Amino acid sequence: MAMTNRSLVTVDDLSNGEIEALFSLADEMSDSMNEQFGLCHGKIMASLFFEPSTRTRLSFETAMHRLGGSVISAVDIGATSLAKGESIADMARVVGSYADIIVIRHPWEGAAKVVADYAGVPVINAGDGSHEHPTQTLCDLYTIKKERQTIKGLKIALWGDLKYGRTTHSLTYALARLGATILFRPGPGLELPEHVLRKLTTEYGGELIRYEALDQAIKGGLFPLDAIYITPSSPHQLAMMPDVSLQVELKTGVDALYVTRLQTERLSAKAKKQGLKEQYPVVDKKLLRKKEFKRTLVMHPLPRIDELAYEVDADPRSMYFKQAARGVPIRMALIAFLLGAKEISIPRESESFIRKTDYPVYRRDFGVSCPNRDRCVSTQETETKYIKPEFKIVSNQPLTLRCVYCEHEVHPRYIASSEWHDGTLDSKKYHSADSHWTRKIKTENLIVFDSESEAEAHGFKPSHYVRVRH
Amino acid sequence: MAMTNRSLVTVDDLSNGEIEALFSLADEMSDSMNEQFGLCHGKIMASLFFEPSTRTRLSFETAMHRLGGSVISAVDIGATSLAKGESIADMARVVGSYADIIVIRHPWEGAAKVVADYAGVPVINAGDGSHEHPTQTLCDLYTIKKERQTIKGLKIALWGDLKYGRTTHSLTYALARLGATILFRPGPGLELPEHVLRKLTTEYGGELIRYEALDQAIKGGLFPLDAIYITPSSPHQLAMMPDVSLQVELKTGVDALYVTRLQTERLSAKAKKQGLKEQYPVVDKKLLRKKEFKRTLVMHPLPRIDELAYEVDADPRSMYFKQAARGVPIRMALIAFLLGAKEISIPRESESFIRKTDYPVYRRDFGVSCPNRDRCVSTQETETKYIKPEFKIVSNQPLTLRCVYCEHEVHPRYIASSEWHDGTLDSKKYHSADSHWTRKIKTENLIVFDSESEAEAHGFKPSHYVRVRH
Amino acid sequence: MAMTNRSLVTVDDLSNGEIEALFSLADEMSDSMNEQFGLCHGKIMASLFFEPSTRTRLSFETAMHRLGGSVISAVDIGATSLAKGESIADMARVVGSYADIIVIRHPWEGAAKVVADYAGVPVINAGDGSHEHPTQTLCDLYTIKKERQTIKGLKIALWGDLKYGRTTHSLTYALARLGATILFRPGPGLELPEHVLRKLTTEYGGELIRYEALDQAIKGGLFPLDAIYITPSSPHQLAMMPDVSLQVELKTGVDALYVTRLQTERLSAKAKKQGLKEQYPVVDKKLLRKKEFKRTLVMHPLPRIDELAYEVDADPRSMYFKQAARGVPIRMALIAFLLGAKEISIPRESESFIRKTDYPVYRRDFGVSCPNRDRCVSTQETETKYIKPEFKIVSNQPLTLRCVYCEHEVHPRYIASSEWHDGTLDSKKYHSADSHWTRKIKTENLIVFDSESEAEAHGFKPSHYVRVRH
Repeated sequence: MAMTNRSLVTVDDLSNGEIEALFSLADEMSDSMNEQFGLCHGKIMASLFFEPSTRTRLSFETAMHRLGGSVISAVDIGATSLAKGESIADMARVVGSYADIIVIRHPWEGAAKVVADYAGVPVINAGDGSHEHPTQTLCDLYTIKKERQTIKGLKIALWGDLKYGRTTHSLTYALARLGATILFRPGPGLELPEHVLRKLTTEYGGELIRYEALDQAIKGGLFPLDAIYITPSSPHQLAMMPDVSLQVELKTGVDALYVTRLQTERLSAKAKKQGLKEQYPVVDKKLLRKKEFKRTLVMHPLPRIDELAYEVDADPRSMYFKQAARGVPIRMALIAFLLGAKEISIPRESESFIRKTDYPVYRRDFGVSCPNRDRCVSTQETETKYIKPEFKIVSNQPLTLRCVYCEHEVHPRYIASSEWHDGTLDSKKYHSADSHWTRKIKTENLIVFDSESEAEAHGFKPSHYVRVRH
Repeated sequence: MAMTNRSLVTVDDLSNGEIEALFSLADEMSDSMNEQFGLCHGKIMASLFFEPSTRTRLSFETAMHRLGGSVISAVDIGATSLAKGESIADMARVVGSYADIIVIRHPWEGAAKVVADYAGVPVINAGDGSHEHPTQTLCDLYTIKKERQTIKGLKIALWGDLKYGRTTHSLTYALARLGATILFRPGPGLELPEHVLRKLTTEYGGELIRYEALDQAIKGGLFPLDAIYITPSSPHQLAMMPDVSLQVELKTGVDALYVTRLQTERLSAKAKKQGLKEQYPVVDKKLLRKKEFKRTLVMHPLPRIDELAYEVDADPRSMYFKQAARGVPIRMALIAFLLGAKEISIPRESESFIRKTDYPVYRRDFGVSCPNRDRCVSTQETETKYIKPEFKIVSNQPLTLRCVYCEHEVHPRYIASSEWHDGTLDSKKYHSADSHWTRKIKTENLIVFDSESEAEAHGFKPSHYVRVRH
Repeated sequence: MAMTNRSLVTVDDLSNGEIEALFSLADEMSDSMNEQFGLCHGKIMASLFFEPSTRTRLSFETAMHRLGGSVISAVDIGATSLAKGESIADMARVVGSYADIIVIRHPWEGAAKVVADYAGVPVINAGDGSHEHPTQTLCDLYTIKKERQTIKGLKIALWGDLKYGRTTHSLTYALARLGATILFRPGPGLELPEHVLRKLTTEYGGELIRYEALDQAIKGGLFPLDAIYITPSSPHQLAMMPDVSLQVELKTGVDALYVTRLQTERLSAKAKKQGLKEQYPVVDKKLLRKKEFKRTLVMHPLPRIDELAYEVDADPRSMYFKQAARGVPIRMALIAFLLGAKEISIPRESESFIRKTDYPVYRRDFGVSCPNRDRCVSTQETETKYIKPEFKIVSNQPLTLRCVYCEHEVHPRYIASSEWHDGTLDSKKYHSADSHWTRKIKTENLIVFDSESEAEAHGFKPSHYVRVRH
């Protein structure tokens, strides 16, 4: 099964079976590294890094060279292209006419999707703002798999900056899909964003238990947590009395501790002042002496700063340099797969029971735009020239739209229908989003507004329900 | 016919026949892209970009990789090398001893010529300040040729920043030589420089008609123009009554509209304040509805900013992404040609009747230097250590010297002869440049001065003609 | 003899015989450049430049491409990685798991050693601060060898910035080892550092004569000098009456004049103001007319600024562009050798009589640290997390410790023994470093302190000898 012109923008672009198949391919690659050299001969990979990165870029470029391919590379081009005012779409089209595959890192969330939409060749997201970093997740999962033979049923703790760390977002989704239990240990003020948490429960079907809801006995025996995600593959009883079974489960220890650094480059000036650095939790020998970490894989996407002590390096539990090294075969596998240089066979049993939900799409020239200002690609001055805001309607009650680019959520305040009665101005009414109209209007006719003035600017008048509230 | 150690600094370094032959070679390249992979095996291209660029550089590097060659690349090195105070000539010599071919982009006009003079290997100019960008022109011409089968007799409109846009300078020369009629539509204050206009008429033999000289009927039926260049390949009558025949000609429409962005990075602080951006002409659907653009190829060297609306992208007349894509085969052809990896056969009939004029050269340690201060390579502090000002004497009346580096013109005020009578100080006289002496002094003996004090500093005394004017 | 996992951090990492063998290999490489293309096929070189450099980096990358290998490259990454706060050791480990060989340039002295310690693959130092630049030295020596057939017995003058110029440090050591006489002509305030001078006499066995100690007759007949290093391979008499024989020797002229630019980027703000630039000695035609330079090879590692006039370029004695060109075959030879792609045979007679001295090592968590603050890698905030200060005890009288990273020297003021009597606190005494205790305490027990307060902080009390001095 080849993947002609498929891209990897979010980790959900790969099925569970494909992920397993890529792991087998990566094994093959690392077992006979020198034999892969002809695989992508004559192919060109464009490596476009709009944000500083050494590790990830060199890992991709190494992978392409090990496959015998060529690399064209544009590094730290942020200032350059932005200065000339070019859009990402134009850049994608042009580079897509040069190269056979594109790797893109960009500070704007959703940028990789735009590149994939316009390039005409396979695109790999090497990190888009705080959104996703799916190939890092592949390295992470591959490492866990190599060390523990499975991911299903494992207990994985995510540690540190869960808010801005894109690697943890991609990893969270993948772990949930692959059936792991996830323990969240954020630094203060660095909790997983709401939209990520919601996606966990609505999309992947598991259960999320907040720390304060946990039984006191568990709290006492546990390192400080924020929340636990329990995979639906666990026994039924669990959902009914999570605390008890969790207690039982945790006795067997944490399988992996995934440490991340504070993403200082994404903090606002205000956040920087709040002493996040000082209060950031540190993983060191002392912590790892706790019994729940006895056989824990200590992982880190690197670079590390102070959150992971050097004294851990010599510990056999430390996995981070192995993780980095495994980035090469896994990226080789992915590139070969996306370029159609290698076919993969998907083990049937490994397919997930979780299917991607097909939400209805909301796309209008006017009305709401993504609230993730300055970070979402769809809100950038150079990009609004051709990008229309686009959302998935993930819930009707309360009305929730998820930006297709950055996956942040909007809760619009007012709604209307594009199919108004008689087509006369008189029948153009807008309603409160929390009224019964939200369910009545067909999604293909739905129009949403952020404010009354905006609705009125488009010729709509308040319905009875809106007027009553004044 | 191989081109051992020939360089492409200006578009005039290639004959019409060679340009045609490169187009055939580019066709061959794009028809069987994968078969070119061994062509430059073992060869190294150095890609030296002293100015930000992603597109052009990646296009060249892609071309070299598609030919199976290797690339060494130095990007955005402006600050780096300048900080160490190294000259371009030194850099050229060193890199020329590493690589088999050099691609250079530099903000200084004439820099590519210096590199070509010193490198000892073929050099390709990938843009030198506002001077030239000949490979962009090859992409442009190649696109026109592919879409219209010929260039001779076509009507091409150049749109936007004709002052600083080096792509339009190279294109103007090439179109004139290849027999096209050119319509100039500059943004306000962004007219083609005088020396470029003059070269058009003196070198390529056509006629230039200013807008104000056009017949009212034409003016009315036409989009706003600045001037028209009429190729000498047109019928004789044309030259005699251009307005009438032009009117007839334009009815058949404009063949290509070549849009360029405002080169904000080359504007002076003063120019930036003058609202050039706001008054810059925009090409959009509405404009393209005009009947003269009915079958126009809409072209752009990219990146675009606001001068070319995104709504045009889906229009079948839009050619800009094709232009960019065609940069790869045309650059492959050029590199293979310059490296002697491919011989080309020149169709005899395609040779131009226009021959390069062999102007006498003026080169002295003292006297005038290039007036294009800060932009011309010959005026830079690091380069004056080894570069002597050098000019072509393109006209005697008025005396006009053209800098061999940046092609800007000087009109010296005073002249003298190095072969003065008896060789005594008494007979060392200087004269006004507009006196009859200018024609009398043999060009090999000519000395020119910008000021009387300079002439006198070199031991010359004013002649009668100079004294009279006081 | 293959060099599996050997690195080239300082020029002393290669024996004289290996240097000679590399020259033969470089000859082979340049004689049949095209036949080397398969030699490193499938191998990857990482080129990590934390300081701006075009020449050296491109030379290495050219060498690897000419050997058929691939290159991954991170340029001007100073800001990038430092911003994220990553240590050099982490970077080295990660890149070492991607690439087969690493080339590193870094502003911190000793950085290349750290990379070599952690990478797990061969590492080549392409310049670490003002410390060393051994491959430049290989180019330099190779050029002298090609032009003069030998290095032994030649008289080489080093000219310019001997203080910060890392190329002169590496070259000085190598020339001494290979038996050349060295004449030092520094710019004012730019003398060779003390620790480099000391290493010359203690390690390489020659004699150093300061200018002021020279006979007046020599002074008169010589260009201004700072000092002369006389190789021990010279006749015995020389050491006894150096002035006379030197006079005789110098009559035969200087064999090579090695010019270097002022390393302005390493000057302190204060030094920049002191007019070093204005007083910097210049090599031009006039100087080269002196009889001692009649057959001198004029060398320069480039880039040059004003210290070497362009008028010398056309002179047959000028060697600098040849030096640069020869960087490619010599680096090809080195890479092929370190990767084990080529075995070398060492001519027995060429082995030096100078052997690397095995000094005892001093390594403690506390006590002295390297005095070369801000420049030595061991004093950097990101690196002290895992680097312990480490020294070689190169002398007991006066007690002299040489930092293993940057080779700067420390002269500690106080010492103690880790094997104190009875192990009781009472017997923990510290002594003056210039007391007889320094020779009494076994080096494996030695503890050194910079200050009394530090010694006391570690539980030591002043011995009688210390107390007396108060």
